[in-house]
Amino acid sequence: MIKPLISLASALALSAPLAAQDAALSSSSAVGQTETPAPSPNEIVAAAAPDDWVQIAPEDLLVMTLAADRDGNARQVVIQLMPPPFSQGWVENIRLLARERWYDNISVNRVQDNYVVQWGDPNYDNPEATGEAKPLPQGLKVMGEEGYYVDTSGKLADGLAGAVQDIFESVTEQRGQWRDGEDTLPRTGYYADLESFYLGWPIGASESEPAVWPVHCYGMVGVGRNYSPDTGSGAELYTVIGHAPRHLDRNIALVGRVIEGIEHLSSLPRGKGDLGFYADFEADKRTPIVSVRVAGDLAPSEQPRFEYLSTEGESFARYAEARANRRDAFFIHPAGGADICNIPVPVRRVVSE
Amino acid sequence: MIKPLISLASALALSAPLAAQDAALSSSSAVGQTETPAPSPNEIVAAAAPDDWVQIAPEDLLVMTLAADRDGNARQVVIQLMPPPFSQGWVENIRLLARERWYDNISVNRVQDNYVVQWGDPNYDNPEATGEAKPLPQGLKVMGEEGYYVDTSGKLADGLAGAVQDIFESVTEQRGQWRDGEDTLPRTGYYADLESFYLGWPIGASESEPAVWPVHCYGMVGVGRNYSPDTGSGAELYTVIGHAPRHLDRNIALVGRVIEGIEHLSSLPRGKGDLGFYADFEADKRTPIVSVRVAGDLAPSEQPRFEYLSTEGESFARYAEARANRRDAFFIHPAGGADICNIPVPVRRVVSE
Repeated sequence: MIKPLISLASALALSAPLAAQDAALSSSSAVGQTETPAPSPNEIVAAAAPDDWVQIAPEDLLVMTLAADRDGNARQVVIQLMPPPFSQGWVENIRLLARERWYDNISVNRVQDNYVVQWGDPNYDNPEATGEAKPLPQGLKVMGEEGYYVDTSGKLADGLAGAVQDIFESVTEQRGQWRDGEDTLPRTGYYADLESFYLGWPIGASESEPAVWPVHCYGMVGVGRNYSPDTGSGAELYTVIGHAPRHLDRNIALVGRVIEGIEHLSSLPRGKGDLGFYADFEADKRTPIVSVRVAGDLAPSEQPRFEYLSTEGESFARYAEARANRRDAFFIHPAGGADICNIPVPVRRVVSE
Repeated sequence: MIKPLISLASALALSAPLAAQDAALSSSSAVGQTETPAPSPNEIVAAAAPDDWVQIAPEDLLVMTLAADRDGNARQVVIQLMPPPFSQGWVENIRLLARERWYDNISVNRVQDNYVVQWGDPNYDNPEATGEAKPLPQGLKVMGEEGYYVDTSGKLADGLAGAVQDIFESVTEQRGQWRDGEDTLPRTGYYADLESFYLGWPIGASESEPAVWPVHCYGMVGVGRNYSPDTGSGAELYTVIGHAPRHLDRNIALVGRVIEGIEHLSSLPRGKGDLGFYADFEADKRTPIVSVRVAGDLAPSEQPRFEYLSTEGESFARYAEARANRRDAFFIHPAGGADICNIPVPVRRVVSE
């Protein structure tokens, strides 16, 4: 058996188990090379100190249980909700909808290749709907479009000043750290003046507007909406399963990301209706959602625990630099740059001892 | 029934039927708006003149037939091979392998989420291999790593001069056309000095190296290889099913793209082995490949016909500009830019009359 093909080029998918990827990488590094290859991004992550990892609060985790697949295998998806200062009105709505058990017995209604998987009430805002929409609970906030980003003008006078200042400093400092590769090219954004990470999230920023906002990378979760001025409630959600649709940034609310089990969504059959909705004749392809729970509401023994690699730490800076300038064994021509969605923030499940 | 959610944000997937997308867009434009929205990218494509479309030669199309799915549905994938001056040694190998029927009865062996689907001999270069590898036919070329890109230095003296000159001119001119949006931001590449299109393909270019090369967008097809200096033969192929892994550019040969049926690959169950290979215990998940044929070798009545929107024409320039600056009804904040993989080249099947 020879080496697996394009093995070290493996992307660190949000949902990929780090342990498995690292095992493959370790065996690969046993190949005779004329010189020791540079560590791969995953090797850098594996070597990160325990305190480089930040625990995700159970209040910020949603556990979504899908119906078992055709072979009877359980399917569970874990979503991390977005922290302040972003999208908090929608995030609060989502916790409310979960606690009211509104999401229970809805379904995945849309799977559009290289775009999104969308779930919600199959009878609401669905071109293939055939029944009555499910009533929404009381108490949902109605958010404005200005919530799609954080306007940073004047923020120095209020409580967000620290966070916003941090974001700008984080973006600027990290970009400096990634520039040391000899092949490094200009890193100006296509979609933002600056792009970097803040408290574990990919963020776009504009100094001229000025504003900061979360960006649509693979696995990010957003709030379906109707035409402006509608902004959606959080009852209808989608996740990205293709190339980052960055044109949606600042046009729709991003509320989180899938951190485990995205394969249960991304491998679903594509819908044959318009926009990838399941057409009426294939309504049986809609995957039932059994329940959605805030992890903090579960019994302690049932709460999944996750942590992310601090995007403010030295390990992440080395990881990001290595993603932008691959020098590990498989590569012969480091790219000299990486777009923000090609630097997925490492997230791992914590297994109790 | 209200409007479908995030409807007009729909990406033009390579494999999506244009007719279906346009039907959805037309119904959407009937919504009462205070002013007529700008045409969507798909509406621009639908309005393109017939001579904006370029027929793809049957010699450049591969028809890959997978085994029927569990419900007995046929699955066919169509791949367009890459034209000169790129990767032609591997492309010739692929035609040879198809004509020798070497691909018949191999399988899809690897499905890694947000990365690649890979097919080939399950007993070659597969960490989960259990049997003997299938012998390769005589006559395959052994390509060098310099074939991953076209070194443009000195090319003015040989027969490639015209094509290479065209690529640079195309890149430069198109970038100028896309800059007219009022929100347009700098468009410098993360991965290349310049990025644009040439004869229907996404291309990176560097004036300083100087070189041009095809880029790893969603749906692109490449040649699996082992560690350098191996460059692969074309017997092992992969396609991208996630965010563009641009770090692979110039590190591996790109030979084509999936233009129809990618959902038959992207929706396959993810492998549980290292790097998404199907593990030994799930070897039954490998999808058999029944046959791969060059379309030109089929009887004329069986040859699928496809055409792409000329990337050198005015319609494509308008389409690309609209992708970068969405002003159609759903959008409130045009991005002001788009990375090259977020401007998929429109490809459509030609239905005989």
